[in-house]
This record gives sequence, structure tokens and C-alpha cells, in this order.
Amino acid sequence: MEVRTLAAARIAEEINTRLDQALEQWTKALGAEHVMVDGASRAAVETATFATTQMVPAILRPGSREQVQECMRVANRFRIPVYPVSSGKNWGYGSRVPVTDATVLIDLSRMNRILDFNEKLAYVTVEPGVTQRQLFEFLHAGHSGLWMDATGSSPECSLIGNVVERGFGHTPYGDHFAQVCGFEVVLPSGGLMETGFCRFPGALAGPVYRWGAGPTLEGLFSQSNLGIVTRMTIWLMPAPEHFEAFFFQCNRQEQISSLIEALRPLRMQGILRSTVHIANDYKVLAGIQQYPWQETSGETPLLPELMTQLRTRLKFGAWSGSGGLYGTRGQVREAKKAIRKALKGNVNRLQFLDDTRLLFASRFAKLYQFLTGWDLRKTIDLARPVYGLMKGVPTDQPLAGAYWRKKSVPAGDLDPDRDGCGLLWHAPIAPMEGHHVAMVAGIATQILLEYGFEPSISMTLITERAVACVISICYDRREPGQDEQAMACYDRLRRELTDRGYYSYRLGIQSMSEMRGTDGYAGLVRTIKDAIDPHGILAPGRYQPASASSRATAKA
Amino acid sequence: MEVRTLAAARIAEEINTRLDQALEQWTKALGAEHVMVDGASRAAVETATFATTQMVPAILRPGSREQVQECMRVANRFRIPVYPVSSGKNWGYGSRVPVTDATVLIDLSRMNRILDFNEKLAYVTVEPGVTQRQLFEFLHAGHSGLWMDATGSSPECSLIGNVVERGFGHTPYGDHFAQVCGFEVVLPSGGLMETGFCRFPGALAGPVYRWGAGPTLEGLFSQSNLGIVTRMTIWLMPAPEHFEAFFFQCNRQEQISSLIEALRPLRMQGILRSTVHIANDYKVLAGIQQYPWQETSGETPLLPELMTQLRTRLKFGAWSGSGGLYGTRGQVREAKKAIRKALKGNVNRLQFLDDTRLLFASRFAKLYQFLTGWDLRKTIDLARPVYGLMKGVPTDQPLAGAYWRKKSVPAGDLDPDRDGCGLLWHAPIAPMEGHHVAMVAGIATQILLEYGFEPSISMTLITERAVACVISICYDRREPGQDEQAMACYDRLRRELTDRGYYSYRLGIQSMSEMRGTDGYAGLVRTIKDAIDPHGILAPGRYQPASASSRATAKA
Repeated sequence: MEVRTLAAARIAEEINTRLDQALEQWTKALGAEHVMVDGASRAAVETATFATTQMVPAILRPGSREQVQECMRVANRFRIPVYPVSSGKNWGYGSRVPVTDATVLIDLSRMNRILDFNEKLAYVTVEPGVTQRQLFEFLHAGHSGLWMDATGSSPECSLIGNVVERGFGHTPYGDHFAQVCGFEVVLPSGGLMETGFCRFPGALAGPVYRWGAGPTLEGLFSQSNLGIVTRMTIWLMPAPEHFEAFFFQCNRQEQISSLIEALRPLRMQGILRSTVHIANDYKVLAGIQQYPWQETSGETPLLPELMTQLRTRLKFGAWSGSGGLYGTRGQVREAKKAIRKALKGNVNRLQFLDDTRLLFASRFAKLYQFLTGWDLRKTIDLARPVYGLMKGVPTDQPLAGAYWRKKSVPAGDLDPDRDGCGLLWHAPIAPMEGHHVAMVAGIATQILLEYGFEPSISMTLITERAVACVISICYDRREPGQDEQAMACYDRLRRELTDRGYYSYRLGIQSMSEMRGTDGYAGLVRTIKDAIDPHGILAPGRYQPASASSRATAKA
Repeated sequence: MEVRTLAAARIAEEINTRLDQALEQWTKALGAEHVMVDGASRAAVETATFATTQMVPAILRPGSREQVQECMRVANRFRIPVYPVSSGKNWGYGSRVPVTDATVLIDLSRMNRILDFNEKLAYVTVEPGVTQRQLFEFLHAGHSGLWMDATGSSPECSLIGNVVERGFGHTPYGDHFAQVCGFEVVLPSGGLMETGFCRFPGALAGPVYRWGAGPTLEGLFSQSNLGIVTRMTIWLMPAPEHFEAFFFQCNRQEQISSLIEALRPLRMQGILRSTVHIANDYKVLAGIQQYPWQETSGETPLLPELMTQLRTRLKFGAWSGSGGLYGTRGQVREAKKAIRKALKGNVNRLQFLDDTRLLFASRFAKLYQFLTGWDLRKTIDLARPVYGLMKGVPTDQPLAGAYWRKKSVPAGDLDPDRDGCGLLWHAPIAPMEGHHVAMVAGIATQILLEYGFEPSISMTLITERAVACVISICYDRREPGQDEQAMACYDRLRRELTDRGYYSYRLGIQSMSEMRGTDGYAGLVRTIKDAIDPHGILAPGRYQPASASSRATAKA
């Protein structure tokens, strides 16, 4: 660190004084047990799945909306920037680490009440600490006929956290941000507001009709630093009369193009009502096992030639896809017919699975192995979490993939931050056309291999017209030099893809500079930010379109 | 008018001077032929389907985005408030009349280009002047396999105008605001911005993925006075393999409750993928004919007893409903089965209709009449526009209903403003539960009859969880006292419904005070408005949450 001038030292001291004063008032408001300044707690939240340098001076754990408001008022009074996380499971995008240095973390996980639930109108109203697991268990315990939509990240993910980041899942309600209605938001000033009809006294349609009257403001509070969402209604899906999943494989890389062309009409016509998820061979392998250290004699990356051998041996394709069919028995039967017809010649294998077949397969796996030599249990173990996700059952199976370059996955709870898992996600959106998807896959494969990483890619048909291409850079943070190598790879990948018009639907804390611009959108967001957060207290830099081209991680 | 003080006179003179200066510059920018100040043009735009007092000093007709920007810059320079309309067909909600007095109209109808069209990805990008008819003819001329969604108002309606007002249609794409992607907006300052991915240079997913990266801002520009939408991408629906409509009737008023309960699960489960439209007897009659002057001996209102006789004679129900089924032949067959089962016992009549049957019926109507005495052509004529709407075919049949209390409908083009049709629409949203819908219908029926109007009501299952209850107060503006009586009725209706929690999804220029409030939402919208439109130049009062409780129509 450079030699500090006297003036700089004085500023630092002044900041510390302000921080101390703020901490005193936060402690008064929340109680000492909910204001953490100890080294271990701070180190934990300062750790992501890639290299960061931001320090977190304290962690606040408000237990109510009123306490969140008070946190903001104190932050404003003493000009201390704060950064809210719901559950903080934003792995691959920065976990709990704030975008800027010296920012106090507001951890909302204590606010974990399910505030309202309506079986008939199929919605639930939750606080930010409510996790996927919690909602799933709530529905199960109440014998509800409703399904939630789960994202594949972890059962401990916050529902609100995922929605405001515009994450996605696997059922017809997979585009999460499209399925919410009515936010309660604490503004940077500490003021409170509600969106949609909820703002009107006694309004009955608050949880059922999203747009309300007048300007619709939910969008302002997703991927932004304009407010803290403290309550949200999420729509749930009635369990269909019948559910069936389909699984397919393509043997050759190039087939992705015609596959997308074949699937688009099905998605567009509503024959496929949910997201379809297609993973490449690297992604599938990372879901099954650790990096094949033995087969590669400890060398990295896993080269395509060996990958091809492995996937032939393990019997999966260059691309493996899955999707769910929801409806009456007859509707599902119709959909199956249409899928068979559309995929004929475009895939090498197509299988359907429902609850009965899954149960049957589990029961007779041993016998089946005896007769055929093929261990069905492995396939079932692999299929079950994916199958479950399509029915809205949260799973941490995909999270295990973050341990790919590790020698083993811990037996207990998974915590990629703690365990030094390296993970950088980049998620460009491509129009749903074969050549676009093939282009993104091709660029990503080439660049990741060039930098010594396995190109682990999944393509999700997230809406009728768009494909979310999730590219994972997966490594071991404990290996020297890998943090730098991975970030260099990420930067190159992002540049090459945006140069060709493929922009990410979601940004990591290290890439908020993507928002920058001198265009009208950037100007308007800045104007709004300045108007409602004049001291720049709330989550500085987060999805904030800076006018300069500097990285938003500049020291505060 | 009161005697003006000298000071007031001076202010008025100053305003006139500013207006003159502005007009000079607008004329320079647009050309004299696109700046109208003549009495006839002004009188036309000062006329709505109910009483208004606002004067419009001039009409500007910009022909391009750049001209719209220039209009705003001049407006700011001389502090002249302006009010944009796309096609101005906002009948029942204020037509082209600005919310405040002395506001210059910006008529965007000259900007009527279809800028982009993609058959594969099913979208079209349009300017504000593009009408429903224009898009329909464009698709037809290009032999497109795509359907648009049409609102029932008029073929001459602007697509953008309807979307930003969050209007709705009758296909699976019926919730219009949910089907758009990427706005280009002229801000009050004259600056330009784009939403979603469109803001990024060379971005490919602009027209296909709505949320973009960072805060999502489309909502700011719907039902607002924060910007002028000059370009918009609208998603289109691929024509299904098979389409079939269903029509049903209930004989008794009270059946609406169990009917809604029966339909909700179908809508929620995706068996019904589109809006379902249910009209009461008054609404249906107004669609068939003028007010029955003869049967009532010229008395108004048409009382329920006579209404019951009429509907028995004309063979329609207390409630008549319709909906569309879209999919493969097998899917439609499945849906029909489910509908038959669900509606059994809840309706008195259920019929399905597809292209083949419609053609057949048209051909053999005469023979059928000869054999049965029943004039099928009348039924067909009545069904055809509704049937068409479900296939995205615009129609002006519902508009004819605005002439209900007139003695006849003009043979040429319909213009309710010009023809002195009285029409006030109120459209509260109810949660999709029988008792809510019955409650709204009951209150509306009682109040309208009390004030001497026919309770013409339609209930649209606009989403899976919400019903838009459109109540029309229909009268003859040429009848003395009726303007006042209708407005009194409207005010009472609105008050009684909001008191019970049913708020309107859309507001007329006379009811913008509904937005008022001292809550956080109102405060935030005001803060944004002040920040981006410091002189309050753009559409003052429109969906603007005033803090005072005064009517927003106060003189500017």
C-alpha cells in the first residue's frame, strides 16, 4: 500500500469515527447479538467463489421491516454504505461480497416468515429470508395442491433473492421475475413503499394482479440498488393432473443447432410450457463426479478427446436435455406425440419418465442390472434431482458441481465460499435460433479450453424466444494462480460474447461495469438513483450504470 | 368567469406570448401543415365521450422520433405543457382530451411505420401510429403464420397506445403489457432512451428477452407521464394447428359466482390459455341493437324485468361467455373435454365452434331457418366478431355499443366523440373468486339502475388469478343533464367499489385523483417526475399521484 498522506489518514480516521457512531446506533436498534464485527464472521462474508478484495466492516441482521428502515436511516445519518443480501447464496456472481469496499452487510435471513398463503388463488407472500426449502416444506406440510418453482442452485436460496436477481427455474413458472406481484420495498432513505394495487388501502387484488394502476415499479427493484425488497408475493402453480418428464441426448456437438430449431416451435406453440434445459457433456460429467484426476494423470484441462471417450463409456451425449410436460393425461399424451415428431432425427435418444416409471425403475434396478449389466441406479440417481426440479423440488445436486476441480465433495453441507471452490458464471442470452446458440457454445468452448478450464455449458430455453446460456468457469481457488487465470478467462469470454451481441442477463459483482454507458437508460437510472439515494448509501455500484468506464469495484 | 385582476391578465398574456413563441419553433421543426391551431381541429380533440372543459391551444403532428424530441425541447424552453396520444382512441377514458387545461396535444399517428418483423421469433416492432388494422393487414399480406392479439375497441386503435394503457385482448397474448419487449422512449427533456438489452450496442436479444440487465424500466412508461414511447416490440403468437371457440350461457344472474369458481381451475391449470370474456344481458343486447325505444315507450332505463323478457325472446342468457382453445387437434379435444366437465351444471348452454362449422352454418343458414324457423344468420353475425377477436382479428362491432342510447348507428365510420355518444368506463379488478365477481356485478347493477343507466357489464378472466370487470355507463350526450348524471353515477360507482377494495386497472382523465396519496409509492413517483420533468411539461396530471386530494383536472 502506498504511503498515506496526512490528509488521507485524517479522512480514514473520520470514516472510522462515523462507522463507530453508526455501529452504536445500529446496536441500539438491533441488539448486540445482531451486529457482528468479529473477524470470523467478516472473513466469511468477504469470501466469494472468486478473488475479491472488498472488506466488510460489519454485518447487520435486522429482524423486521422496521429494523431495516432504521438501518437505512442510521446509514444515511453517518454516510456509511450498506449492501443487502437475502440469503447471500449468489454463488458464481459474488456470494455475499459487496460490490464496493468498506460496505456494511445487511443480512436479511432472519426475516423468514411466510406472511400469507392462498391455496385457491395460488400465491404465497414471503419475507427475504424465506428459502426454497422452507417454502417446499411449508407446502408439503399443509398438503397443498400447489407446486413452487425452484432454481437449481440450493435449497437454502432465498426466494426473494433469486427473484430480484431474475433467476430461473424449470417449471412453467420458470421465469421467476414474471411470476411475482406486489413488492414491499424499503427505500434508501428508510422510507417504505408498496407496488401495484397493494399501495391502495384495503385493495383486494394486490397479490393477484401485478400492474396495479399508474406506473409499474417492480422492475426498478430487480437487479438494482434502488431499494430493499422486504416482502413479495410469488405465484404458485397448481399441480397438474399428470406430470411427465422427457430426456434426450445428441451424440454430436453440432446437433445443438438443429435441436434448438426443432424445440422452438414446441415452446412457441405452448406444447412445451416450461423451460427446457440442455447441458453439454462437461456440465453433465461435473454433475456426476469430480474431475477425472486419474484418467488425466492430474493434468488439466480435460480435453475434448478424453471427454468424448468418457461420455461414450458413461453413456451420455454431447448434449443432454430435459423438460417437463404438465396437464391432463390427454394433454401430456398429445405433447409427447408432438415432441416425438419434432425431435425425430434431431436427437439420438428420447425417453419419457413419470412417477410410476421412476418408482418401478428404482424397485427393479438390481434385477435390471443382473439381467443387462447396466446399473440403472446411477441413471436414476442422476435423473432424480432434475426430475424433481421440474416438479419444483429444490435440490443441491447442481451445487455439488462447484466442487468439480476439488478432490472430493464434503459429506455435510455444501459451502463453495468456505471450501475454496472457484466458480464464475456468465449467462448471456441468445435469441432462440440454432445458429446463435451454436455460436455462443462454440466461443465459450474455445475460450475456456484455451485458458485451461472445462467448458461447462447449459442452454435453457427460458422463454418462448430466448435461450439463457449459462457458462461456468469452475476451478480450485486453493491452486496458485488459478484465481487470476479464471478472471482473465472470464473477462475475455465476456468481451468476445458482447462484441458479437450476446449480453448477460445477470452480472457478477466483478462485472457491474457492463452497465456503464452514456446512453439515455444509464442517464435515467443515475438520475433516479441520485434523487432517491443522494448519498449513494445503498449498495453502491450494484447494477449501477456508471458514466466512467472504470471498474465499479473502485474503493469507496 | 370572474373579473380578472391586472396581475392575472398579465400572466395570461405572458403565457400567450410563450405559446406564440413555441408555436413558431414547432412550426419550424414540423412544417406548418403539422401544427394545427384551427377551431375545428381543436374542437375535435377537446371532445371526449363525457363532459370535459379542457381547452387545447394547438395540435402537433411530429413525423419522427427526432421531431418528437424537438417538440419536447421547445415545450421545455417555453414551459408549455404537452400531452401525447398515439391514435387517441381512448374512448370511455377521455379520448384525446388532456388531463389539464391549456395543454398542447402531440398526435403521434403520423409515425406509423412497421420497423421490424421476425416470423421465426414471432415479433414485430412498431411506431405509435401503427394501428390494429395495419398490423392485421400486414400479417395477412405477408401470408404470415402469426396472429396478433386485438383489443375489442376499434381496428383504428394504436397498438402502442393500448399497450401503454395496459389494455387487453382475447388470445393467449391477451395481457398486452406482458407481451412487449424493448421500448424506445423520448423523455420529458427531449432525451432518448431504450429499455432492456436494446440499450447495449449491437445487442441481439433486444426484441426477445424483456428484462435486459439492471433495473427493468418498461413499467415506468406505462400508465404514466414520464416519457413518450416512440417504438415498441410486440410479441406475436404462432397460429395454432387448431383453433376452436366455446360459447356458453347462464340463465340466472346468480350463476356468475359458481361459473367463476368453475372456470378458475381451468385458467389456472393452463387448460384455458386465453382470456375468457363473460358479458351480462345488457352488454349483449347493446352489442345486438340500439336501446329498445319502442318496447320501453321511450322510457329509460331499461328495467331488469323487461331485460329478462327481451333476453328470453332473443335467446341469450343473463350471462353469455366465450373463450378460445388453441393447440394441436388433440390438445383442443382434451381441453373441450375438461371444459364440458367443469361447466356441467354451471351453465345452461355450451357450444363449440370452429372454422368448418362456422362456414357450414353460414352456408346453410337459410335452409336451417326454413326448417326450424330460427334465423341462424343473426347468431352468426353476432358470433363472428367475437370469434374473430379470439383469433386476433380486429373488429369495430363492440364500438357500435357506444351508440346504444342513440336512435341509430351511422353507416360510415364510427366516431363516438363526434357523434355525442356518452360513454364512461370503469374497470375494477377482482380476485378470481365467485363472490368477488358477484359482488362487483351486484354493486354496479344497483348503482347504474339507480342513476337511470343500464348496467352493461363484462367480466374478463384477464390472467390466471384476476378478473377485469368492465362497467360501461352509456348515454346520449345530446340529452340535457345526462353528462352530469353520468358523471355523478361514475363517481358514486368508483367510490362504492374502492371502499370495498376493488380498484380500477385503468383510469379516465377525470379520475386521475385516484392515484393521489401520501404513501411511499406516490412519493417515489413524484420524486422521479420532479427529477426528469422539473417543469412538469409532459402530460401533467396523467396517472400522477398528487399529494393533495384535489381533482387533477384543476386549471393549469
